[in-house]
Amino acid sequence: MKATGVVVEYNPFHNGHLHHLRETRNATGADIVVAVMSGHFLQRGEPALVSKWSRTRMALEAGVDVVIELPYCFATQHAEIFSRGAISLLDSIGCESFCFGSEDGDIDTFEKTVVFIEANRERYNTYISGFIREGMSYPSALAKAFQTLVSGDSVIDLSKPNNILGFHYMEARNQIHSSLKAYTITREAAGYHDQHFSSPSIASATSIRKNIFSSEGDHKIDSYLPSTSVDQLTQYQLEYGGFHRWENYWTVLQYKLLSSSKEELKEIYEVEEGIENRMKECVKTSTSFEEFMTKLKTKRYTWTRLQRMLLHILTNTRKEEMRHRHASASYIRLLGMNKMGREFLHSKKKEMPLPLISKLSSANQSEIELDVRAAEIFSLGLKNAAARKKLLHQEWSQPPVMI
Amino acid sequence: MKATGVVVEYNPFHNGHLHHLRETRNATGADIVVAVMSGHFLQRGEPALVSKWSRTRMALEAGVDVVIELPYCFATQHAEIFSRGAISLLDSIGCESFCFGSEDGDIDTFEKTVVFIEANRERYNTYISGFIREGMSYPSALAKAFQTLVSGDSVIDLSKPNNILGFHYMEARNQIHSSLKAYTITREAAGYHDQHFSSPSIASATSIRKNIFSSEGDHKIDSYLPSTSVDQLTQYQLEYGGFHRWENYWTVLQYKLLSSSKEELKEIYEVEEGIENRMKECVKTSTSFEEFMTKLKTKRYTWTRLQRMLLHILTNTRKEEMRHRHASASYIRLLGMNKMGREFLHSKKKEMPLPLISKLSSANQSEIELDVRAAEIFSLGLKNAAARKKLLHQEWSQPPVMI
Repeated sequence: MKATGVVVEYNPFHNGHLHHLRETRNATGADIVVAVMSGHFLQRGEPALVSKWSRTRMALEAGVDVVIELPYCFATQHAEIFSRGAISLLDSIGCESFCFGSEDGDIDTFEKTVVFIEANRERYNTYISGFIREGMSYPSALAKAFQTLVSGDSVIDLSKPNNILGFHYMEARNQIHSSLKAYTITREAAGYHDQHFSSPSIASATSIRKNIFSSEGDHKIDSYLPSTSVDQLTQYQLEYGGFHRWENYWTVLQYKLLSSSKEELKEIYEVEEGIENRMKECVKTSTSFEEFMTKLKTKRYTWTRLQRMLLHILTNTRKEEMRHRHASASYIRLLGMNKMGREFLHSKKKEMPLPLISKLSSANQSEIELDVRAAEIFSLGLKNAAARKKLLHQEWSQPPVMI
Repeated sequence: MKATGVVVEYNPFHNGHLHHLRETRNATGADIVVAVMSGHFLQRGEPALVSKWSRTRMALEAGVDVVIELPYCFATQHAEIFSRGAISLLDSIGCESFCFGSEDGDIDTFEKTVVFIEANRERYNTYISGFIREGMSYPSALAKAFQTLVSGDSVIDLSKPNNILGFHYMEARNQIHSSLKAYTITREAAGYHDQHFSSPSIASATSIRKNIFSSEGDHKIDSYLPSTSVDQLTQYQLEYGGFHRWENYWTVLQYKLLSSSKEELKEIYEVEEGIENRMKECVKTSTSFEEFMTKLKTKRYTWTRLQRMLLHILTNTRKEEMRHRHASASYIRLLGMNKMGREFLHSKKKEMPLPLISKLSSANQSEIELDVRAAEIFSLGLKNAAARKKLLHQEWSQPPVMI
C-alpha cells in the first residue's frame, strides 16, 4: 500500500480541502492519504472552531484514511518548526510522499528554490537579520531577504502564504534527510486569507469561520462544505453549546496576565523584548480580546506573532518546556482511521521509529503533557460547565475515531 | 482626641455591627472609632460580597470615623497572623485602646487566660502538635489543647469563635509590646456562623449573605441592616451587576489549577502535603466551586483552610512572597474617613511609625503589590466586562472615601 501525506488544519474541512484530497490521490497515485492535523490550537495562535475529534471525523468522512495529531509544540509555531514536526511525522509513519497546495503549483521550481537557498544560506541569513534590525517583522524580513537574493532568477514567490509553507516542507524534508517525494498542486480559487466568498463552491476557511461567527446558528455556508462537515458543525453546536474562538478565553487570559508577575510572563515561550510590560498595561484597559489585541499591536509584531505569544501564555507553556520538544517529534498520536487506514497502520507498525499512541493512558505522560494541557484548557472555551467537563475528559476517554 | 480600634470585615455592615459600635463608644469613652477592615478577600478565604470601597462607605455612614485596610497578607490568615496585623495597625495609627465582641464578655478573664497560656506555652504547644499528629485540624487541636491545659481553672471558652479571635488580639498586643488597652463587649443574639434569622433586628452576616444569594434581587434583609447598608448593596448591584462569591471565580480557578504544574502549585502559600495532586484530580471532574470543594474536603482539612489555599492559588500568592510580609504591617492604607476622622489623622500623622497611604500611586509599589493584585483579580468576579474594568481601576483611581 502506497501512502502519501498532507499537512492540514481542517478548520473546518471544506470543498477546497476535498478538491486538494482528490488531486493528491491523482498526482501521487497513492492508495492511502495520511493527514497530519493540528490539535485544538492552530498555527496562527488561535483555537480551532471545534475539537480535534470533530475535525478528525470530518476528515475521515471526506475520504482521508488516517489522521494523526501535529503536537502543540509544532502546530502553534512559525513555518520552520511547524514543517519540521509535520514532515518528520509523515516520514515516521511510513509515507512515500507528501503533497501540498501552493500558489506556484510547480514542484521543480520548489526543488530549485530550496537548493538555491541552501547554497546561499549565509547571505540569506545576513539579509534576514538586517531587515529585522530595521524593524521588519520576521515573515516580512524573510520574504524581503528572499526577493533581494533571487532578483532575476526564476524561483517561487515567497510572499504567497502557501508557497512559504511548501518551501519549508521541502526544506524540512532535506534537513531530516527524508526520502519523501514531494508533490504540489495549484491552489484553487480562494486565497488563504480571503474573508469573502468569491466562488459558488470554494471558499477559504477564514471566510467560512467569519460567516459562522457573524450569524451563529444560521449558517449560510452549506454550499462551501461537504454535507458531512455541515453535520459535524451542527452536531458540535448541539452537543457543546457553541464554537471556540479567542473571545471565549478572554476572561482566563485576562486573569493569567493580571495574576502573573512580569518575571513569570518572561518565562513563557516567545515572550521577549519587554512585551510583557505592554501586555500587563493593555490588559487593564481592555474589555475584549479584540480590543486588547488592537491596543497591543505595533508595527514590530505581526498579529499572528502576538496571538502565538498569548496562546503560550494561555497554556502556560514555558521556554524551558519547549526547548527540548520542538527539535523533533517523539510520538505519533493517532486521532482516527478508516478500514484502509487501519490496514496500512497494521502493515507499517513494526517499522515505525516512534511510538504510535492510540490510548493516552498508555503513553509517556511527560512527553504528551503539553498536548493534554492544551486540550484541557481548550475545554474552558465552552460556557456550559457540563459540556466543558465532557470535552475535557474526551482527551482521556476518546479512542481513535473509526469509520 | 481619644481613639479606639475595632477589627472588622463588615460583609455587610449590619445591625449587630451598629450595636457593637455604640457599645464600643460607651465602654471606651473614645471620641474616634478606627476600623481596621479586611480588603476584598476575607479570613475564611472568600471574596467579600461587595468591594472594600462600598463596605467602607457603609461603615462611615454608620458612624465609624476612620477605615483602614487590613492587607491581604493578614486578612486571609488564621487568627494568629490576622490578629498580629490588625492590632499592630491600630497601635501604629495612634489608638489608645481596642474593643472586640466576644461570647465571654469579661476582659479580666481574657487577660488571665493570656497570662496563663504564656506561662504554660511549652506544654500548650506540645499538646497542639500531639493532637495534630492524631489527625485533628489546627483549630480543633488548639481548642482541645487549651481545654486539656486549663481543666478546672476559670478561663475563657476557646471553642467559641469570637473568644478565639479576642484571645489572639490580646496575645498579639502582648507580643508586639503595645500599650493598647483592651475592652470586650458581649456579643448579642446571633452566633457567628448562624445561617438562620433568630431575632427581629440582629442577624449574623452569614445568614444575611445566605439570604441575599438565595433570592438575588429580592432581599428580605432590610430589618437586619441599617438603611445606609441596604442602599449601598442596592447601589452596588445596579452599578456592578451583582455580588461577589466563590462561584463567580470558578472558571478562573479551574483554569489556574489545570494550567499550573504541580511544582508551580507547591510554590503557592499554604499548599502543602501533596494536596496539589488531589486538587488537580478533583478539578477535572467538577462543574462548580461547591462540587469541587465537596470532593476536595477530607477530615484533615477544614473548609476554611481549603478555601484559604484556593484563594492563594487564585491570587497566585507564593510562599516566597508571603515570607517577609506577614511578620508585621509596613504601611497603613486609608480607605475612608469622616470629618472627625480627618482631624484625628491630621493630629496623629507625624507620630505614625508607618507610611499612611491615601494615594496608591505614591506608595511603595512592591509593598502594596499583593493588595493590588488581589483587587484586580477580585474584579474578575463581575460578569460584565465594562463593570469589571471600572472596578479594576477603582483600586488606582479611588481616593479615600469622605463623608
